[in-house]
Amino acid sequence: MSGTPDETHDPARQSWVASANGHPDFPIQNLPFGVFSPRGAGPRGGVAIGEGILDIAGLCTTGLLTGEAARAAEAASGATLNPLLALGAGPRRALRGRLSELLAIGSSAEAQLRPLLYEASDCTVGLPCAIGDYTDFYVGIHHAMNIGKQFRPDNPLLPNYKYIPVGYHGRASSVRPSGVAVRRPNGQTKAPDAASPSFGPCQKLDYELELGVWIGPGNSLGEPILVGQSAEHIAGYCLLNDWSARDFQAWEYQPLGPFLSKNFTSTISCWIVTPEALAPFRIAQPARLEGDPAPLPYLLDPADQASGALDLDLEVLLLTPALWERGLSPHRLSNSNACHMYWTAAQMVTHHTCGGCDLRSGDLLGTGTISGPDAGSFGSILEATLGGRQPIVLETGEERRFLEDGDEVFFHARATREGFVSIGFGECRASIQPAPALL
Amino acid sequence: MSGTPDETHDPARQSWVASANGHPDFPIQNLPFGVFSPRGAGPRGGVAIGEGILDIAGLCTTGLLTGEAARAAEAASGATLNPLLALGAGPRRALRGRLSELLAIGSSAEAQLRPLLYEASDCTVGLPCAIGDYTDFYVGIHHAMNIGKQFRPDNPLLPNYKYIPVGYHGRASSVRPSGVAVRRPNGQTKAPDAASPSFGPCQKLDYELELGVWIGPGNSLGEPILVGQSAEHIAGYCLLNDWSARDFQAWEYQPLGPFLSKNFTSTISCWIVTPEALAPFRIAQPARLEGDPAPLPYLLDPADQASGALDLDLEVLLLTPALWERGLSPHRLSNSNACHMYWTAAQMVTHHTCGGCDLRSGDLLGTGTISGPDAGSFGSILEATLGGRQPIVLETGEERRFLEDGDEVFFHARATREGFVSIGFGECRASIQPAPALL
Repeated sequence: MSGTPDETHDPARQSWVASANGHPDFPIQNLPFGVFSPRGAGPRGGVAIGEGILDIAGLCTTGLLTGEAARAAEAASGATLNPLLALGAGPRRALRGRLSELLAIGSSAEAQLRPLLYEASDCTVGLPCAIGDYTDFYVGIHHAMNIGKQFRPDNPLLPNYKYIPVGYHGRASSVRPSGVAVRRPNGQTKAPDAASPSFGPCQKLDYELELGVWIGPGNSLGEPILVGQSAEHIAGYCLLNDWSARDFQAWEYQPLGPFLSKNFTSTISCWIVTPEALAPFRIAQPARLEGDPAPLPYLLDPADQASGALDLDLEVLLLTPALWERGLSPHRLSNSNACHMYWTAAQMVTHHTCGGCDLRSGDLLGTGTISGPDAGSFGSILEATLGGRQPIVLETGEERRFLEDGDEVFFHARATREGFVSIGFGECRASIQPAPALL
Repeated sequence: MSGTPDETHDPARQSWVASANGHPDFPIQNLPFGVFSPRGAGPRGGVAIGEGILDIAGLCTTGLLTGEAARAAEAASGATLNPLLALGAGPRRALRGRLSELLAIGSSAEAQLRPLLYEASDCTVGLPCAIGDYTDFYVGIHHAMNIGKQFRPDNPLLPNYKYIPVGYHGRASSVRPSGVAVRRPNGQTKAPDAASPSFGPCQKLDYELELGVWIGPGNSLGEPILVGQSAEHIAGYCLLNDWSARDFQAWEYQPLGPFLSKNFTSTISCWIVTPEALAPFRIAQPARLEGDPAPLPYLLDPADQASGALDLDLEVLLLTPALWERGLSPHRLSNSNACHMYWTAAQMVTHHTCGGCDLRSGDLLGTGTISGPDAGSFGSILEATLGGRQPIVLETGEERRFLEDGDEVFFHARATREGFVSIGFGECRASIQPAPALL
């Protein structure tokens, strides 16, 4: 898998970047990669450390790196991280290890590195990769159950669910980084009692709480990635909001699946949190229960079964204009955990390629909505309001059945384990803008 | 729309490239764009003319082009045609017009251009673009009826079909140019009477006869392309074989649509046949009948209704190893026509963007399988054999219910109209290789 905890996870290690120590997302134990633009300058690779970002292109000129770490840093110097991801785990791990030393208190490199450190608040952080293809899975079993119950109360899970990591192709062009506003889409809806559909703004706008999985080295067409090797093809993780237009989805999705209901925007958190940073937080799969069928042999790997899941808390917050105007905190819509994935990221990768489909470095896989089993842990508003029938009531007295214009949705992730420093993913957030005028 | 016939369509015009005159695909009235590699040299843009290919990068150095034509040729000089497609119709039309003059008999440029002309048989022709996203539609109404009948005899068309140009996202990474062999995929199948699925080579391998639509200038996220403007965003057409694993599809496709059953390879013909070349062959939509509902206003454009369909014959041929060994001709599996599209390419573009999804230059849209109404005109073997129940019998006595290893499938297209020179698309072909060993 992605290695065992090592000195980069040492909870005693602190950084000379003071804001990193105790930082909820980016302590020195995390060191995620991204692409940032300092004010007035072009995009380049960076590492998040506390409230700062270290410029990797600058780091390459210091002479502080050698060997694999230098090779990884060169690959991470440009406007996209696709070349870094293509290198695979070895160089990435070497660069992470060296960064952990260089950024630690007591490093003799501090004076040399200080000029390469930017305040994150002075920078724009964009998409880390040029995404060749984006695939969305459906591995959150409680979400699949909850959605299924709304359509088929007696038989919520389809027969293929516990055999296939169900997935479908999404739209790569409309993936946007955290902070870019989402425009409410127009589209076709058909009311159950209407003779024909109508065209207009989405009335059932929803978020979907997902993890994104970044593909490292790809595979050639026709050459599947074995499940025991899949971990080497995973370069990291992000948060993913797969915004959904539920009214459009209901009318359009038969027989070929969701299309316009999902492709108007997908929002991701900007930092690639590496498998190395997440190594302490791996667990066996709690979503797989006694009596569940064994995965078919091509999806079965003992190491993946033992530690293929992530213990990662996931949170959804909603800020309405009224909450904001009154200075109130965002409303917590959900507190879930990535452990509720029925299939692991490695199984997603292997299934995706088992028929020969080629993945490329920088491709993005979504997990599908990760709901927990209980009210308060659902990953979409469709689940939380039972399809809009039970509104959420906010501190302002406002009700929400679906999202309204001006609403802002925030996702956060936090990995915690006793004896280790917690790490997070940074923010995945966007606000809703009104639909464009009708065509 | 894409213009009316002009002097580039003059049937009296012939080329000093002798092989172009009477050429079934590439007479001087066609002039499609592509990317080719001469033996031992790198890829660059070219124009197909008879059995030759004119090197556009070389053409740029001759001084024979000015203005918009020169701008288009510069954009078509590199290893992909995305920059040419981004320029839109004006420069493309100017370059086409100038090429038609330069390649015509009597052109004073002949001596200057001869050294820039390669024999196609000495070149490799590849994908014309880096495909950002690939979307597949379902606009062949007879195909939708035939498939629907196999599942729902009394109600073959779903209620949304005549309101929505139904589509879904496909896989861009696995699109390959004509000639690249297709490896039979492994995957999950569940027999109706089996308790659980099994994993192995596809037993129901199929082709799907489609047109591909190349996107020219794109649109910004959140800014739909109006139906009256869509034609300006279409840069051309190709043939597309959307290979399908029917046994995998049946087991995997609920609830999110086809995935591994479609993403192991899609094959396209390599030349971008422009809307300008196809202008004489545009017709009103015969697939739309009296009594069909009017398209919703956002999909309705009088000019598109009057000439949004293409009268383009489509042919599917099968060559088995036994036919080849005995020197027999390929078996004609189908003779269909692009006029059987219920929705036009312009309607596909507008629907795709109506919710705000952004298209990018070089994106590829598939039409979905274009079947005719009768036996002998079906665009998939699933239809031709009634789901494998009525085998096709070949001249060798062989039977085919689905495709077998070693089979080679050819698509051809031919546009014909009295008073005009016929043009074609070149070949879209691939052979089937055995599945890889099981994982």
